[in-house]
Amino acid sequence: MTDIAAIPVSLGARSYEVLVGPGLVGEAGARIAPLLKRARVAIVTDATVAALHLQALGGALAAAGIAHEAIVLPPGEQTKSFAELEHVCRALLAARLERGDLVIALGGGVIGDLVGLAAGLVRRGMGFVQIPTTLLAQVDSSVGGKTAINVPEGKNLVGLFHQPRLVLADTAILATLPLRELKAGYAEIVKYGLIGDAALFDWLDGDGARLLSGDGAALARAVAASVRAKAGVVARDETETGERALLNLGHTFGHALEAATGFSQRLLHGEGVAIGMKLAFDLSAALGLCDGQTPHRVAGHLARMGLPWRLADIPGPRPATDELLHHMAQDKKVEAGKLTFILARAIGEAFVARDVDAGAVRRVLDVTA
Amino acid sequence: MTDIAAIPVSLGARSYEVLVGPGLVGEAGARIAPLLKRARVAIVTDATVAALHLQALGGALAAAGIAHEAIVLPPGEQTKSFAELEHVCRALLAARLERGDLVIALGGGVIGDLVGLAAGLVRRGMGFVQIPTTLLAQVDSSVGGKTAINVPEGKNLVGLFHQPRLVLADTAILATLPLRELKAGYAEIVKYGLIGDAALFDWLDGDGARLLSGDGAALARAVAASVRAKAGVVARDETETGERALLNLGHTFGHALEAATGFSQRLLHGEGVAIGMKLAFDLSAALGLCDGQTPHRVAGHLARMGLPWRLADIPGPRPATDELLHHMAQDKKVEAGKLTFILARAIGEAFVARDVDAGAVRRVLDVTA
Repeated sequence: MTDIAAIPVSLGARSYEVLVGPGLVGEAGARIAPLLKRARVAIVTDATVAALHLQALGGALAAAGIAHEAIVLPPGEQTKSFAELEHVCRALLAARLERGDLVIALGGGVIGDLVGLAAGLVRRGMGFVQIPTTLLAQVDSSVGGKTAINVPEGKNLVGLFHQPRLVLADTAILATLPLRELKAGYAEIVKYGLIGDAALFDWLDGDGARLLSGDGAALARAVAASVRAKAGVVARDETETGERALLNLGHTFGHALEAATGFSQRLLHGEGVAIGMKLAFDLSAALGLCDGQTPHRVAGHLARMGLPWRLADIPGPRPATDELLHHMAQDKKVEAGKLTFILARAIGEAFVARDVDAGAVRRVLDVTA
Repeated sequence: MTDIAAIPVSLGARSYEVLVGPGLVGEAGARIAPLLKRARVAIVTDATVAALHLQALGGALAAAGIAHEAIVLPPGEQTKSFAELEHVCRALLAARLERGDLVIALGGGVIGDLVGLAAGLVRRGMGFVQIPTTLLAQVDSSVGGKTAINVPEGKNLVGLFHQPRLVLADTAILATLPLRELKAGYAEIVKYGLIGDAALFDWLDGDGARLLSGDGAALARAVAASVRAKAGVVARDETETGERALLNLGHTFGHALEAATGFSQRLLHGEGVAIGMKLAFDLSAALGLCDGQTPHRVAGHLARMGLPWRLADIPGPRPATDELLHHMAQDKKVEAGKLTFILARAIGEAFVARDVDAGAVRRVLDVTA
């Protein structure tokens, strides 16, 4: 059990650790056993992840004497639905899981968000463990207890805060990720630099390519840095009454872009965030908040890493400005009709702007190629 | 605003008041206005309650300058479903309700449980106000933050703890209740006496008939006494890690009876609880925990009030013992396969028994006519 970083998320009685490093799936039985009342868990995953990692996880649990029941869902964002939520809740009940038992969410953000919600609802709250299998989930969605499904009215609009009991971020299994997904997760790492850590951004600007080429040490360092940044924010503001909103840098634009492209393979979440971060810096510059060169530096880094950074990078027809504004108006973070954006005074100096003029947003969208 | 009892539920940042007394629907605008960020709410109710009380509530809100959108659901236990949960969540989003807005649950336990859950999930948690319109909801389900829907695997197995911001228990509107429903709610008042307040049981044994004949003062006194008892328990054990389980007196048997009768009009929830309480005292006596005369005293009171108290009082075929035991094994409160029951050493002296022998339960069911 070497080379494993243990990062605490400090939330009183709901505190837990995020373990980051290679080989954690193989250690899952030993890591999870101390949390169990009896040697039985459910694993919820999707068909893609099941083919890659379910046998290894099941074996690691069995080695610690832990029996499991596997619930395998279809892969894809469409799985974050009321229908699949009902399916998972009922499957956990049919498996006779009890209040003191644990559910393991093995997969990317879709699985983590859905299973965390189901665990929060079954018997009014069961414990769950996150084993995030994508870079995006390791650096973002598996930490902090946000769970949700999508509805036609918008993404993540139905959910709750339900913290996991443990997160195992096995950086070795990221080797099975398609490059496009690795890059999409990388965008969220860049986000932590842009929000509050200019030194992290500088390191990424120099070493990001090494990370994306699969360098294990660089990956583990970047994941741990991201989790540390997120854990600090979550510990200070669990339910997003203030500072936690900073983590939404690029997300108001990004969610609107995902909605306009039907939450499809046209645009992955991290890709939407990448374009959204560039737009947030464009908006910051347009409002005179940051230097006009800063958006170019952000765009340059994203472009060199092979990430989309402008609307024109989205395959297919350009989403209409009116449609994007409509989606933004339905964002969870809307308060009394005012648009909330995360803007920045510089790289590493983001802040929450709660009263952004829709006209300025429209102009930024219209001039963006 | 006279004759209104204000009973605090003390839960730190989630504390709220339960107001009990006649005329509160007419005062709803003035009572709710201080909780609002903007003068707009949603009311969720069912068609039966809407016909009786929606106009009065809407008028009271309008008098305080509060606009509302009404969402009207079909009446009945079947409404506590995933399908209606999805319907309510999406309707609240379509109405453009924001995080700081409030949802009013106007109705009985079905509406309160469902709407509380929807409010807990929309945008990861909106505030809600309970306006319970049945005696059962006023003395039990509207207080304490338990929300849930049913699934084929069992009643209330999917839900969460989400406390209301305010409860308005208007005892005058109980005059619109059918007598059968009034009696079903009365069973839960008897429960508070049986759990921990022998003097309340004695008073009910003397004055219960007056209450059921519609005496407003007796009703308000009984509702306030019940809410005070429940508020105390909830404040000491919000998420049922211990003492709160006492409130389930009669409920393990009762839920099984409801499940065996298909959650239908054959047996209302309070009627199941009435029979269940008698069975809990039978079981207590069979285990030598309480005097053999005590179950007879409980049965005598229930019978005089016109409540069912034995399996033979359920219309239609007698539920099979095996089926009842099967339903009990699926109860939320099962831990490591052991059955948990609330038993009693005497009237007013209930306690949690976590390791009850299934054989003793079977014998009690078999000998009960």
